[in-house]
Amino acid sequence: MAEDEEREGEGRRDEAVVNAELIASVREALEAGDRAALLAQLAPLHAADIADLLEHLDDEDRIALIRLWGDDLDPDVLTELSEGVRNEIVPELTESQLARLARELETDDVVYLVEDLDEPEQEKVLEALDDADRVAVEKSLTYPEYSAGRLMQRELVTAPEHWTVGDVIDYMRASDELPETFYDVIIVDPRMRPVGMVPLSRIMAHRRDTPLAQLMTRDFHSFRPDQPQEDVAYAFNHYHLITAPVVDENGRLVGVITIDDAMAVLDEEAEEDILRLAGVGDEEISDSVWETVRLRFVWLSVNLATAILASMVISIFEDSLQAVVALAVLMPIVASMGGNAGTQTLTVAVRALATRDLTAANMWRVVGREILVGLFNGLAFALIMGLIGGVWFSSLELALVLGAAMVINLVAAALAGILIPIALQKAGADPAIASGTFVTTVTDVVGFFAFLGLATLVLL
Amino acid sequence: MAEDEEREGEGRRDEAVVNAELIASVREALEAGDRAALLAQLAPLHAADIADLLEHLDDEDRIALIRLWGDDLDPDVLTELSEGVRNEIVPELTESQLARLARELETDDVVYLVEDLDEPEQEKVLEALDDADRVAVEKSLTYPEYSAGRLMQRELVTAPEHWTVGDVIDYMRASDELPETFYDVIIVDPRMRPVGMVPLSRIMAHRRDTPLAQLMTRDFHSFRPDQPQEDVAYAFNHYHLITAPVVDENGRLVGVITIDDAMAVLDEEAEEDILRLAGVGDEEISDSVWETVRLRFVWLSVNLATAILASMVISIFEDSLQAVVALAVLMPIVASMGGNAGTQTLTVAVRALATRDLTAANMWRVVGREILVGLFNGLAFALIMGLIGGVWFSSLELALVLGAAMVINLVAAALAGILIPIALQKAGADPAIASGTFVTTVTDVVGFFAFLGLATLVLL
Repeated sequence: MAEDEEREGEGRRDEAVVNAELIASVREALEAGDRAALLAQLAPLHAADIADLLEHLDDEDRIALIRLWGDDLDPDVLTELSEGVRNEIVPELTESQLARLARELETDDVVYLVEDLDEPEQEKVLEALDDADRVAVEKSLTYPEYSAGRLMQRELVTAPEHWTVGDVIDYMRASDELPETFYDVIIVDPRMRPVGMVPLSRIMAHRRDTPLAQLMTRDFHSFRPDQPQEDVAYAFNHYHLITAPVVDENGRLVGVITIDDAMAVLDEEAEEDILRLAGVGDEEISDSVWETVRLRFVWLSVNLATAILASMVISIFEDSLQAVVALAVLMPIVASMGGNAGTQTLTVAVRALATRDLTAANMWRVVGREILVGLFNGLAFALIMGLIGGVWFSSLELALVLGAAMVINLVAAALAGILIPIALQKAGADPAIASGTFVTTVTDVVGFFAFLGLATLVLL
Repeated sequence: MAEDEEREGEGRRDEAVVNAELIASVREALEAGDRAALLAQLAPLHAADIADLLEHLDDEDRIALIRLWGDDLDPDVLTELSEGVRNEIVPELTESQLARLARELETDDVVYLVEDLDEPEQEKVLEALDDADRVAVEKSLTYPEYSAGRLMQRELVTAPEHWTVGDVIDYMRASDELPETFYDVIIVDPRMRPVGMVPLSRIMAHRRDTPLAQLMTRDFHSFRPDQPQEDVAYAFNHYHLITAPVVDENGRLVGVITIDDAMAVLDEEAEEDILRLAGVGDEEISDSVWETVRLRFVWLSVNLATAILASMVISIFEDSLQAVVALAVLMPIVASMGGNAGTQTLTVAVRALATRDLTAANMWRVVGREILVGLFNGLAFALIMGLIGGVWFSSLELALVLGAAMVINLVAAALAGILIPIALQKAGADPAIASGTFVTTVTDVVGFFAFLGLATLVLL
């Protein structure tokens, strides 16, 4: 019975940890300035959930929480916050909160916390670090944003090729500077160039006298610090990597990227594509109204310009519209179908470019396929819409015009939907961004022009 | 110099492994039936790249490659294929290829290969398995599709709570049935209920006489086999899990899910959302033209119905359109701006629901925010478009009507964009699916009705 209930819902979710009740009682504690009550609320929560809680509060309550939390603030919470909220909170930290942060976070997390801050606020955090860590963070910040260099951690475990299982176990037991978690030992040559990797599970399954050289995989994937993070996420997902060394131009090991970092990037990049396709920038649901208005305004302005362009096409045919009002009634259908078909093609293309299923090698085959799909669906809807339009306005000529415009626009939609993202990618731009506007501009302009133009020729 | 070149491009990509040259020479080998040449081409490639290669070939060449590859076929390639190509190839495998597959793949991979096959073809693969594996696969297939039970692997390493580091190392050295890779040892009580987890890195960093109980984390996340896979992916990403036990209704360990599986699911779920938002089903770029036409036709039909609905709204105002042709010219702008604004809100909402940033706890605040954003952008574009429309057609009344319709439609867009996905989610449906049509239906109908209705009242 219970099992049946559970099994039912594709949509079933875990109980939300951050629910209205928790938020209400945290707010109460904040209003009363009741530190003990706040700590009791936060104690059982995972850092990621406390971050969610902060995102659910408004600006004022957030800062109040950080203040009241005081020196018990868990620095991990900061790394879990969305960018907007993070950049608002970090500059508000007290000296002693910063000191705790510096003591407890690994350098890659500190980089992540400060990279979007303004210079003086960044400086405030960096000053709390000890010299070695500050140098490491500053070094990371010299790599481009969204690069492997920013993503990697410097804490890692290496071993020379001649070591045995026993050697590496003894080394690890003696070391007091091991990374918090790791999954592989990187085998390096005397010049610190990685030559192989051994998973911990393989080390543990072999006797002490087994040479590491016998266990190691020589075939591994490595990255350069300046490679874009999306390449890293792609390779981790494609090749099922767990750990990958990052090497400098001389092949020397400078850091390591692990699957959990890559997973976060994969998620980020997918989010970016989803949002960009809809003409929303780096928006977060915790952004302020004003910020959101501003971000969306830009995109809507571009859309306005293209909508006006489409209207100018319509205005060419004012006389026809005045003569046959049915044209005004039917023309949005042609444009709408083209817009939808174009968006379908566009989205498949953008996704296939991101997953690298669409490459130079199969590009023309895919373009041909899209044109055929556009043609076939164009013919199908020409028939359907021709019938409907013909019956509605009792005109065979109108039906023929509508059908022909539908075919033309669905083929145009296919062409625009596939060629525009490919062209953007070739030009070095993100194919997700702006593609949508370009495509619907094409389908609006072609749709209105084909339908009204043919109508003018045939009907008048 | 070289470094500068590398650093330049956000858009820089690795050389594609599967390029036109490789495809051409593989095709050549296939045509000549030259097995040695084919094997030489495939030898240096990763299984994931061979899968890409297969997806780049047409149906005929794919089957030819599988046949010519013969008993050297690497079963891992099959698990890397996209669903469509996989389901086409698996039934074509020979007896001896199936035997190799049964010998080399873990049971969760076999489940993945056969789950979408028809009964008789599934049977053919299952027969190649030994009894124990067949029972395990059949058991997995009893769990719902896209569930934790299908995702988990049964191969795992457990230890009782009273063991020491030395005990577990000795056990692993003696065992010849360890999983290929694993990252944690799961500590179980005598009834096989997980009570804690110890990462391998922590085991290796401690002396042989350290009790595991002292090293283990008691605070871990576990799943039920019937939980949907998207919950699993969410929890792995949110809580940065590496390994999570799967337990039955009595709390007994039945399997384990690792981060690499969760990463693949996260990617799949993001893809699903992207495609569904654009009205494309489970389409793959390797699908046939016919399959694609069919899948997209369904969605375009829905869109056609809603476009006709919008046209019917327009037809109510035929007289007004005949009297003032400027209305026909300007009306698509109001609809288009509403459609875009609605899509922006919708996409942010769908994504926030997927990442659980939009919950019951902040729903009304977000709805309020969206209405305000719609109102402010509506006012901004009312002003801009009122000016343009007024100047273009030299009519203050027209400008006022256009502005008012813009405000009304952008607020309607905000409401539809946020409330429709929330309602779909509450109804247990995927908020990504069909949201787009509903939203643009609202913005088309409201846009045309508001603009033409107000125009009829004010101008005529």
